[in-house]
Amino acid sequence: MNATKITLDENELPKRWYNIQADLPTPLDPPLNPATKEPATPDDLSAIFPMSLIKQEMSTDRWITIPEEVRDIYKLWRPSPLYRALRLERALKTPARIYYKWEGVSPPGSHKPNTAVPQTYYNAKAGIERITTETGAGQWGSALSFATRLFDLECTIYMVRISYDQKPYRRVLMETWGGEVFASPSDKTECGRKFLAETPDTTGSLGMAISEAVEDAATHDNANYALGSVLNHVMLHQSIIGLEMKKQFEIAEESPDMMFGCVGGGSNFAGAVFPYIGDVLRGEVGRDGGDGGESGDGDRYPKIISCEPMSCPTLTKGAYAYDFGDAAQMTPLLKMYTLGYRFVPAGIHAGGLRYHGAAPLVSKLTHEGYMDAVAYKQTDVFKSALLFVRTEGFLLAPETAHCVHGVIEEALRCRKTGEEKVLFFCGSGHGDFDLTAYDDYLNGRIVDPGDPTDAIRESLSKLPKV
Amino acid sequence: MNATKITLDENELPKRWYNIQADLPTPLDPPLNPATKEPATPDDLSAIFPMSLIKQEMSTDRWITIPEEVRDIYKLWRPSPLYRALRLERALKTPARIYYKWEGVSPPGSHKPNTAVPQTYYNAKAGIERITTETGAGQWGSALSFATRLFDLECTIYMVRISYDQKPYRRVLMETWGGEVFASPSDKTECGRKFLAETPDTTGSLGMAISEAVEDAATHDNANYALGSVLNHVMLHQSIIGLEMKKQFEIAEESPDMMFGCVGGGSNFAGAVFPYIGDVLRGEVGRDGGDGGESGDGDRYPKIISCEPMSCPTLTKGAYAYDFGDAAQMTPLLKMYTLGYRFVPAGIHAGGLRYHGAAPLVSKLTHEGYMDAVAYKQTDVFKSALLFVRTEGFLLAPETAHCVHGVIEEALRCRKTGEEKVLFFCGSGHGDFDLTAYDDYLNGRIVDPGDPTDAIRESLSKLPKV
Repeated sequence: MNATKITLDENELPKRWYNIQADLPTPLDPPLNPATKEPATPDDLSAIFPMSLIKQEMSTDRWITIPEEVRDIYKLWRPSPLYRALRLERALKTPARIYYKWEGVSPPGSHKPNTAVPQTYYNAKAGIERITTETGAGQWGSALSFATRLFDLECTIYMVRISYDQKPYRRVLMETWGGEVFASPSDKTECGRKFLAETPDTTGSLGMAISEAVEDAATHDNANYALGSVLNHVMLHQSIIGLEMKKQFEIAEESPDMMFGCVGGGSNFAGAVFPYIGDVLRGEVGRDGGDGGESGDGDRYPKIISCEPMSCPTLTKGAYAYDFGDAAQMTPLLKMYTLGYRFVPAGIHAGGLRYHGAAPLVSKLTHEGYMDAVAYKQTDVFKSALLFVRTEGFLLAPETAHCVHGVIEEALRCRKTGEEKVLFFCGSGHGDFDLTAYDDYLNGRIVDPGDPTDAIRESLSKLPKV
Repeated sequence: MNATKITLDENELPKRWYNIQADLPTPLDPPLNPATKEPATPDDLSAIFPMSLIKQEMSTDRWITIPEEVRDIYKLWRPSPLYRALRLERALKTPARIYYKWEGVSPPGSHKPNTAVPQTYYNAKAGIERITTETGAGQWGSALSFATRLFDLECTIYMVRISYDQKPYRRVLMETWGGEVFASPSDKTECGRKFLAETPDTTGSLGMAISEAVEDAATHDNANYALGSVLNHVMLHQSIIGLEMKKQFEIAEESPDMMFGCVGGGSNFAGAVFPYIGDVLRGEVGRDGGDGGESGDGDRYPKIISCEPMSCPTLTKGAYAYDFGDAAQMTPLLKMYTLGYRFVPAGIHAGGLRYHGAAPLVSKLTHEGYMDAVAYKQTDVFKSALLFVRTEGFLLAPETAHCVHGVIEEALRCRKTGEEKVLFFCGSGHGDFDLTAYDDYLNGRIVDPGDPTDAIRESLSKLPKV
């Protein structure tokens, strides 16, 4: 197509989420109770999650109806546009066609409200009055603060210290919607005080902040906890991205050959690609392990590539093993790619990608070869971010810039080979609150952290025994 | 309608701008040469504007074709959505129906690129290599930096000192697109050095920054100047807002009874309402001076209300007279509502509304009773802004919050009277870079400046003689 963007009317918003668990060749390894190491039961999780979400977490139903109240709120910004990056293509002089789904149009500016809204809805229905959470870059905390406000719930956010310091606007945004924000580790929780005693100068980590939020929820009856990534029900809710995209690519009469996404926990990319992987798992589209193949009716299985930072290379350098989701060993053990629950990545300007683990669903599909992964240097990522901003206009979050870098590298390869590939990336969020990072880049203050290999080896040597 | 928003496909983007000068009962009073006080000729303006824009400035053609290159860039974010503020209505328990056009979806986050893009296009076609401008809140400077980048032109921005200090992210945003930003008054221009010598501690004003940008352009052959509001060609370009809206209201099967907009120079509101006023000027829709009347075919002429800050009450307290557009008396004299070119408003958190004048077209239509105006206190405006953010989700620029306050006051009146009025406001921009202001409001640090009456009287006593 030669259109700049494909928009859908709000009446075309999907009515059901897609659950890839229905189509897995073998089921996920179950989460384990952190104390007994036995498979976690719904009751194990009910201290911090409502039963409706626990059921979604374990469901193998292929389609799950989106409640009308949730769709009504989605309509504030959804369906989100699918863009063709015509100006970026021209700047790269590439024969490739580059598309991106733009999730920056939501009020909090990212894909995160796609799950914050339903999670809040189900908690509100269960009578919960307050939701606790952690946030790294602030995208997730903003989304939950936004969502809880619309359902009149309170929200308590533990924000990773380095982001709290780097991004004061993100804190104010959460407070403007009514959320209460603490720098993590904080003195508000027992585990927070312990972290502070052990490492008073820590920049914090998502693992620590999760511990604090989980402890807060587990120790208060009227409160539950919400996680912005990793869990199966989060991937479920994010499938709205990919379901919209499929309609939009149909209108564009295109089909992606390669799909790129940034992966911290993995939810934005899972949301975009799981509906595509599902087609292959069900045998409706042919699969080939290489650059994509052709099925009988011409549909191609795209090559799917997770992009992550070299300083936190979960999928490319981690172990596929059971591990804790948090630093204080409070969460169930999840089978996933992990750098080890003790791993604290360097303080790069992409807080949303500074997580030691990855979603079990993304991990399993990567392990089984349905998805690939690649890690990039921070300076390369910012160079690509600047090229994107100066051609397409939209300011990207540094997290998102990771997959833009992947797309640009591939588009430049296509320039050499002459291949007219259709490249896609998931534009997970805008960078309005990341301008300190751009300022640093423009003034030569962005550097690449040291090699994390030794720290990873050390951390992986202390994985929990199961 | 009960939809949350009306979107249009990019193919429905209007192909022509609407020029209200074609329909004025009497022509505008001409701009005057500042030295001779005679009507300015195209040649007088050609030192800082390309001839194509000078022609648009003076044109009385009703429809002017939008160049394809400009429409292609508009498609990055246009047509912008028309929202129904269902959640705000519910919170206010009002029978009124509230609609708003959301211009915050553009890459720079406001309506300003609607004119920055065509202005840059015409300058590029004329062989200009650099564009100079001023910016208050930073919305206009961001838009011009964005637009010049897409046409590979350089951009020099004089940013009002108080905004430069309050909004570092705005500066970085402009720099990210490649613009060069100076705090104004600066030592880069002769008039800037003069302002600094006279008032070293000044917070700056749009009037001073305009002088600097005009001097810079006038003294460099390869440079032109661009203004983000006030001028007729800016109102022309912004008519894209109202032309889209008319299609969207038709789809919604609604017709606004009252329209509210924030007015600094007046361009966003002019863009929204001039196509409606044009219907009346041409006699296609009936007019009544009061709350709106009915024409033969049921179309109503809406009551149109400009909202401005009490600390810079141009339309409500200014004189309708010839005045300079800038502090250094360099621009042509324009017949407009003005507080006097020497007036420096208090440093409120709505930099875009801190201008001593108003667009000649908005001024004339206000003077002749086609538009009304009202001024609001800063604290009241922020209270309404917070209610909007906490119900509708989108963070508004403090400028935009002025008309939201007007709508909320009217909606509360409707609650008392039971009137099911259709209220509209122009959502001119987002507040992502205004979070310092929200932080101040949440922490009780927003105050109302003192009464400007004496300063206005003093300033008006020194209007130029013509």
